[in-house]
Amino acid sequence: MSPQVVTPAIDFQVWLPSKVQQVEAMLDHVLPAADAVPGRLHDAMRYAVLGGGKRVRAALVYAAGEASLQSAAAASSQQIALDHAAVAVELVHAYSLVHDDLPCMDDDTLRRGRPTVHVQFDEATAMLAGDALQPLAFESLGLMPIAPALVVQAIQLLARAIGSQGMVGGQAIDCESVGRTLEQDALQQMHRMKTGALLEASVLLGGIVAGASSIVREGLEKYAAAIGLAFQVADDILDVTADTATLGKTAGKDAMENKPTYVSTLGLDGARELLHELRDDARAALLPLGPSAAQLANIADFIVMRDR
Amino acid sequence: MSPQVVTPAIDFQVWLPSKVQQVEAMLDHVLPAADAVPGRLHDAMRYAVLGGGKRVRAALVYAAGEASLQSAAAASSQQIALDHAAVAVELVHAYSLVHDDLPCMDDDTLRRGRPTVHVQFDEATAMLAGDALQPLAFESLGLMPIAPALVVQAIQLLARAIGSQGMVGGQAIDCESVGRTLEQDALQQMHRMKTGALLEASVLLGGIVAGASSIVREGLEKYAAAIGLAFQVADDILDVTADTATLGKTAGKDAMENKPTYVSTLGLDGARELLHELRDDARAALLPLGPSAAQLANIADFIVMRDR
Repeated sequence: MSPQVVTPAIDFQVWLPSKVQQVEAMLDHVLPAADAVPGRLHDAMRYAVLGGGKRVRAALVYAAGEASLQSAAAASSQQIALDHAAVAVELVHAYSLVHDDLPCMDDDTLRRGRPTVHVQFDEATAMLAGDALQPLAFESLGLMPIAPALVVQAIQLLARAIGSQGMVGGQAIDCESVGRTLEQDALQQMHRMKTGALLEASVLLGGIVAGASSIVREGLEKYAAAIGLAFQVADDILDVTADTATLGKTAGKDAMENKPTYVSTLGLDGARELLHELRDDARAALLPLGPSAAQLANIADFIVMRDR
Repeated sequence: MSPQVVTPAIDFQVWLPSKVQQVEAMLDHVLPAADAVPGRLHDAMRYAVLGGGKRVRAALVYAAGEASLQSAAAASSQQIALDHAAVAVELVHAYSLVHDDLPCMDDDTLRRGRPTVHVQFDEATAMLAGDALQPLAFESLGLMPIAPALVVQAIQLLARAIGSQGMVGGQAIDCESVGRTLEQDALQQMHRMKTGALLEASVLLGGIVAGASSIVREGLEKYAAAIGLAFQVADDILDVTADTATLGKTAGKDAMENKPTYVSTLGLDGARELLHELRDDARAALLPLGPSAAQLANIADFIVMRDR
């Protein structure tokens, strides 16, 4: 065996923007040009995907990849595969926002500080842009230059995470529960599906690409479950504590629409307490992974501390 | 080499219903039960997929599989893979109909003789049902028990066929062209994407699963291009010659909305002439494949003669 060289962890304040830049360059490359036919559709797809965003899901792919690599230096094929996986989860996330913002769903007009896609274009174009981003995500995974069996595993994982028993199912439960009070268990189940499933898939995709051992995968799964929930709890807190300008989307909307949230169920202090417990759970799950999981730990902190 | 036994072609009138039954049993099995959470979403997905339909795309998968097999008897793993591929294309087709029927698109209230999904349920549920059928299609392909490299190839093929430069792109061009006159070239390009891309993918998926040789694939591609267009020409003719009860969807809608069609561009006689030319092209493309392509030839006839 070659000696394992542990590279010093790069400062998160440097690491995160570099990964954001990396996935955005790839997204720009993967999305068809706005002058390719049909232009209006491609324009809308680019508007939806390239309009900013925290890129937390892409960061999770890269960080989980770093944490799972068998040797300190990833093979270049693994690096390329991580890029494709990061692109895939960001494409799916963008599509889900476009559809969630439509009038028949949340009817939102503001996203990332700009008009939502159906406001900027039109409803039909927004729906079709979302519909076309989804297969582009699977195509991106299909391009990963790693063992085909791992590619298939990655595609299965993403497909399940975003289907009727994952992301879209959570959205459906959310729609059905407007104006009703959900028990904390039901609320948790809804969020695990709606937001948690894709966040968890992002972490596990990084692990699959990097050939994570079963011990590492177990740690990643526990970590992913904790940060998946933490993300939603933080979102619910921000909905009541932040203003619209900072959020880049309409603040106070959940309360206005009488949507069940962690804050409405636990109160603001209770929600904050839960958030910190989840961060501790996430960090504890990473212990068996050692220092290579440093950026995953930093992302857990980032999710808890974020102000938008 | 073992001697090649050519089984006599089964009568198409027996073959087609047996394949329809086969894929419908698989679809029923693959779709989550209506009592699985979220029930309303699963109910809508089942309503969208299991409500009849000609199952032409599934039939193309099976027929292309039969035509491409290296020996007369397919391995059972190939048979199972063809089932999964047939399920995938029918799920995609069903999702595309649900979204096309939405008020922001074609605003149709009748499909296969029943209320459309958003009429039977609601708009949000219809959109989410379509959104969830799409990943289920990719999951189904991912389950094919054949070489993983072929699975990845199949997934890439489907993803490209239904993206912004395939099915969804064609739909976007169709939306943009309402009330305008398209040149025949532009009309053909739109239909190649909107309807042809998934029909062609169905044929090629059957070939991939069955390990088609390059000569066979070439024949399949030419066949697929011809029947892809033929299908749309037949649709346009039926829109003006059939009544709503026979079609199971609103007849005369294209003309009413001033949509460009083959009939509006070529006239009824010109469209019928083109349809028969395309059938001849399709049959000619099958010649190198020999008698195993009998059902593909029959499907070409079926597309030309259908009355709904």
